[in-house]
Parts: sequence; structure tokens; C-alpha cells
Amino acid sequence: MEFSSKLLENAVYEMSQLPGIGKRTALRLVLHLLKRPTEQTQKLTLALDHLRNDIKFCTNCHNISDVEVCEICASPRRDRSLVCVVEDIRDVMAIENTSQYKGLYHVLGGKISPMEGVGPQDLTIGPLVEKVKKGEIKELIFALSSTMEGDTTNFYIYKQLEGLDVNTSTIARGISVGDELEYADEVTLGRSIVNRIPFENSLKAN
Amino acid sequence: MEFSSKLLENAVYEMSQLPGIGKRTALRLVLHLLKRPTEQTQKLTLALDHLRNDIKFCTNCHNISDVEVCEICASPRRDRSLVCVVEDIRDVMAIENTSQYKGLYHVLGGKISPMEGVGPQDLTIGPLVEKVKKGEIKELIFALSSTMEGDTTNFYIYKQLEGLDVNTSTIARGISVGDELEYADEVTLGRSIVNRIPFENSLKAN
Repeated sequence: MEFSSKLLENAVYEMSQLPGIGKRTALRLVLHLLKRPTEQTQKLTLALDHLRNDIKFCTNCHNISDVEVCEICASPRRDRSLVCVVEDIRDVMAIENTSQYKGLYHVLGGKISPMEGVGPQDLTIGPLVEKVKKGEIKELIFALSSTMEGDTTNFYIYKQLEGLDVNTSTIARGISVGDELEYADEVTLGRSIVNRIPFENSLKAN
Repeated sequence: MEFSSKLLENAVYEMSQLPGIGKRTALRLVLHLLKRPTEQTQKLTLALDHLRNDIKFCTNCHNISDVEVCEICASPRRDRSLVCVVEDIRDVMAIENTSQYKGLYHVLGGKISPMEGVGPQDLTIGPLVEKVKKGEIKELIFALSSTMEGDTTNFYIYKQLEGLDVNTSTIARGISVGDELEYADEVTLGRSIVNRIPFENSLKAN
């Protein structure tokens, strides 16, 4: 693409560095901002700069937070002996939306992925092990996505916890509620049969 | 969506004000910026602020430009008697890519659209009529998109030019090169038959 303006070219280039945004989409977004009052661009850039520079993470669970200790970790209603290990804030938001979980979280900040150059030292695995060593935590629930990277990360943490007095579990994989069996992939269907649960338990879940 | 941080919520909100970007996508983009070095966010926000505050428009064709008179308008190789009327810079870029056009442009900055509150006074129609009155322009080519708004805008400009010594034309609508007839919509196919051209002309076009 040839631009008649360096300013425009630069803005489009920087916008197209965001994931899933190509040059054409970037141009559309930038032209949209140009048509709107200057304030809209100001608000956007201020909000992004503020977030990037003033972002804080909860010292306990490492989730994004505006205060030292996040609301969830500070709540007296939460079960402190139960900790759910997740990848990022989106997973916390998803689990919170279910209203089924009353324990705390531990946000890793990613998954071990040699392909993307993410090693265990880039994640908050060290602080997690330290927390477990204090002995307050009875159960760790691994809730990472079930990919190669997720499984590797689970196993790495599991190995680090050897010899420590803590139970580990992983969230159940199976057929989605409301899904037809015939459309499920074989791995999921296979796991859902191997890991079947007593029928009475399924009655309780609702 | 409930956020654990006001800063995050604010950034996601402003990002989701862009067209085609919902809350979920906005969250993904913002989290991406958080994982990257601070400089990337800085570069993006600087580029956007610069563009919005320092943007200039060519005084002749009203296209986005870093200088008083844009490259196209300043070029001695361009035919000054031919002016193509387009909606925005994207159309200029698209036509320039064809390398078939050697005249100048006039960028309207939008289309007349009562639904979106865009009237003739919001576009650069006045300056266009003034330009035509100077008598240098022999032909105006309307190249707006063929929608209700585009047709309205074309007709409005056409009416404003009444009594002035200028020819007006509109770009040809027809079956795309390489398209199969059976898949073309009826309106386009109908127009391509009504506006058929001598076969010899089609040989010249290549």
C-alpha cells in the first residue's frame, strides 16, 4: 500500500501490529478515528498509556488489579485452601461468570511454549510453589487450556510440587452440555467415557 | 463483563468504540499490548495522537497529505482537465493502484447520508463547484460507491453544476473481469447489457 502521508502510514503500521489486524483493517480503524472528534482518539490513547504504565498485579494471585491485593484474594468469603491455576485474566473472568467456584486463583501469565520463547521463568510458577510451601493450600486445580503447551505447563508445575503436601486436580474434559455425541471429536468423547462419574454426582451438579 | 481493574475496563471500553471491534476482541488486543514491551504501546498511541492532531489535507483535492498540495496535485504529468470525485483516501489508493488514471482527484470526505447525519455541507462539495467554475476542468468522473447514498451524492453534485461548462461521467458498472455470468446479480448484469460498449473498445482497454 502506498500512502500519501507519512503520519497516516505510521499510524496504520502501528495499528496493524495488533494481533488479527491487517493493513486494510488498520486503515479502516485509523480513518474512522480521523472522522471522529479529536477527543475520541485522545481518550483511546490516554486509556492505553495509563493501562500500560500504571498497571498493577495482585501480589497474591498475580491477576490484573488496581490495588495491592485484588478483590477476590481480599474477600473473606473465599476458600483459601483451594487455588485454581489459570493462564490469564480472561480465564478468571470466565470461571467467575459460572458462579460455581469459591476458591482463589493463581494467574500464570501464559503457558510454557518453547516455540514462542516462553519458559517457566517467564511465568509465575516460582511464587506458586512458594505459596504451596506455606501449607495453607489443600488443593490446586489446573485449569489451563488442553493443548500441548497447557499439558506441558501442568506437568512442569506438578513436578515442582513433588514432596509437598497438596492435592492436584484438573478440570473435567468431556462433551459440552447441550452437545450431540455424534459431533464430538474422538479424543473428547474417549476421555468422557474413561473419566465417567457416578450418575448421582451428575444430579448434584445442577 | 466484570473487570478487576478500572484501568483495564477503561482501555477495553475505548478500544471497543472502534468499528468492528467488540468487547472480547478489545480485551484480546489490550492484553496483547500488556504482554509486549511498553514501547509498543507508546509507539501506537504516539502515532495515533500525531496523526489526529497534525493531519493535513491537500488544499486542492482534500486528500490526506503531509504537505500543502499533495503529490498527485503537484505532479506536472497529471491531466488537470480531468477530475475523479471519490469518497475517501482508500478510493484514491485503489484507483492509483490500477495505473489507468492520469487525471486529478477530488475527495469528498464521505457521502450524503441523512441516516448518519451527513449533509452536503459536511462534504467538500462547495470547493468542488468553485473549482469547476474556474473553467479548467473539462470532465468530472463520479466514482462513488453505487449505493443509495452514493447515487444521491452524485445527483446532488450534478444539480449544483447545472449551467456550468463541464462534462460529467460515472465509472462503468458491470460484471467483474473474470466473473462467471451465472453468479452475477441481476441489477449488475442488467446494467452491463444496457451499457454495452462497442467490441473494438474492449480490445483497446487491455
